[in-house]
Amino acid sequence: MRQLFAGLAGRTYLNFGGQGLLATSTLAAITAAYAKTEALGPFSRQANAWVGTVVADLRLAIANTLGTTPEHICLTENTTAGMNIALWGYPWQAGDVLLVADTEHYGILAIAKQLAARFGVIIERFGLRYCDDPLATLAAALTPATRMALISHVCWTTGRLFPLAELAQICNRQDVLLVSDAAQAWGIVPPDLVGVAAYAMTGHKWCCGPAGVGALYLSEQALAVLTPTYTGWRNLEGATGAARYEVATSAYPLYAGLTHALGLPLFDRDQQQARAHRLWSALQTLAGVQCLGATPPAAGLVSFRVAGHDPATLEGCFEVDHSICLRAMTDPVCLRASVHSLTTDAELDVLVQTIQAFS
Amino acid sequence: MRQLFAGLAGRTYLNFGGQGLLATSTLAAITAAYAKTEALGPFSRQANAWVGTVVADLRLAIANTLGTTPEHICLTENTTAGMNIALWGYPWQAGDVLLVADTEHYGILAIAKQLAARFGVIIERFGLRYCDDPLATLAAALTPATRMALISHVCWTTGRLFPLAELAQICNRQDVLLVSDAAQAWGIVPPDLVGVAAYAMTGHKWCCGPAGVGALYLSEQALAVLTPTYTGWRNLEGATGAARYEVATSAYPLYAGLTHALGLPLFDRDQQQARAHRLWSALQTLAGVQCLGATPPAAGLVSFRVAGHDPATLEGCFEVDHSICLRAMTDPVCLRASVHSLTTDAELDVLVQTIQAFS
Repeated sequence: MRQLFAGLAGRTYLNFGGQGLLATSTLAAITAAYAKTEALGPFSRQANAWVGTVVADLRLAIANTLGTTPEHICLTENTTAGMNIALWGYPWQAGDVLLVADTEHYGILAIAKQLAARFGVIIERFGLRYCDDPLATLAAALTPATRMALISHVCWTTGRLFPLAELAQICNRQDVLLVSDAAQAWGIVPPDLVGVAAYAMTGHKWCCGPAGVGALYLSEQALAVLTPTYTGWRNLEGATGAARYEVATSAYPLYAGLTHALGLPLFDRDQQQARAHRLWSALQTLAGVQCLGATPPAAGLVSFRVAGHDPATLEGCFEVDHSICLRAMTDPVCLRASVHSLTTDAELDVLVQTIQAFS
Repeated sequence: MRQLFAGLAGRTYLNFGGQGLLATSTLAAITAAYAKTEALGPFSRQANAWVGTVVADLRLAIANTLGTTPEHICLTENTTAGMNIALWGYPWQAGDVLLVADTEHYGILAIAKQLAARFGVIIERFGLRYCDDPLATLAAALTPATRMALISHVCWTTGRLFPLAELAQICNRQDVLLVSDAAQAWGIVPPDLVGVAAYAMTGHKWCCGPAGVGALYLSEQALAVLTPTYTGWRNLEGATGAARYEVATSAYPLYAGLTHALGLPLFDRDQQQARAHRLWSALQTLAGVQCLGATPPAAGLVSFRVAGHDPATLEGCFEVDHSICLRAMTDPVCLRASVHSLTTDAELDVLVQTIQAFS
């Protein structure tokens, strides 16, 4: 499998949480789709019928990863686009509360702030990142004015995995929609969607698809409650279900690329988990290194600090001097390594040895 | 130039208004960008710096086509995405009037209807498509409650070109924002933007870029008045000007493709105009054929009816039996041929002779 990924050559690639690598066969699927478009004549009846199958194939492939059906899948440009659809689609009234966990990406918080300014929505934050009991913490944070809660399936900074379906159950008891950012979950942890209203994914991280294609899962309840905001001809041409939230012309050849990537036998959860635990355990043994997670990582992210070293400086030094790609975070301040099924023990050894030289 | 376009081989391609063809060199630019991403390591500092130049290069290339500067250019997925940004960005109050010409695409009207439902905006339609005097017609349609007017630069059905700057002058006298759909204008007619608030473009039609990349021009006034609706990290990382309306990760390799396409010496307005006039004149001589435009086409679209024949049936027959790609329209009912600089006299002869057999 690793031989399909040119990006693995000559480096230790531990940045799947930023962007996955593109398989040569995925790029070939993309270029074949461009060639086919030209061969059929763009926008010809033949080409448009074929684009219809490309769209349907991707929608089905994504639905299959979640154990759901295609009418629950809206195709988007990225995770944030999906979060915008869910957040803007709610019939907000002034004074309604949007509950936002401290696990959320700053780009998602930016959407919440726009809703506050436009509709008088009240944003309430709550601390989930390091809490002992996520279920009790959520239950305590809900009020009668809460309409929606934003909780990532996997926290993008610490890598902590949350029990999404159990959190959804608590939300649903009070008619609160649980909207979940799955950027660090899709393709790396099993779906956990019962009761979840919306689950926003991107193809270009753990699934190793091309940047610019993502998806939004919407439950039956969400489909009933959420109105399309940005809209266009894709909401009119016979669109039903979650496709009603799509807008207009997209990069369809990239859809073929993501469908191909989702079909690669990339993922082995047992192996990936063993590797992530191995890294976490090795880091525990290094003096001056502190893992942010107190228990072994349940997803792909392993975040840690090296005493006396600024993560941003280390990130640059690791990339330039050691050809190790990982990511420095600012809140909390840490380094974040992404452990994929593609990751090898040898790569993790390189990382641990390099950190050791600094610790 | 024609040899760069595989899609021209074996057919008469007159559907640029639906989708342009992709040059082999543009596809090569796209695949080179994918290869470079993998070579640098996706999301590495090097790769992210390079993506920054790809984004800046495209923004500048688009600004150059309009005679404006990059801070006025928001990069989008398509024309409709740009129209959504402009339409949703206005601080609508219940009772405000949105004036929508009968030249507008049904996908854009769908946005207006969402605004009516969400904010109590009143949609007023007015007939511009066949009017004698667009300026007087617009002036008569404006009321004190009008806040924004939607007028395409080139009507997507009839191909009529409107005097955008002059229409904008009339709007501005009454503090009305003129928002223009440029799907059938960008890359085929000169820009005419003085006083225009917003101008929504796509790269995948007349400019022959890849599907899935477009842009929105915003004037200083529009930048001051319009709030970002869908938003995300691209609105936070030092974004200024029109970039503030961008959201999150896009298909950056396609940006490199559009920049490449915009650099091809594709367009010769004199030649394109001569060809479009030639087709229009030839159609005038055919019994039973009626052109929708009463004067020679000023843009790329030439729309016409063939007496006794359903356009949709003709569209299919032309494609299957004659390898001619054009588009059947339903409102008004007609066939629409797109005449590009790439179009040859020989292709137009094939079309005219084929129509003649039906007329």
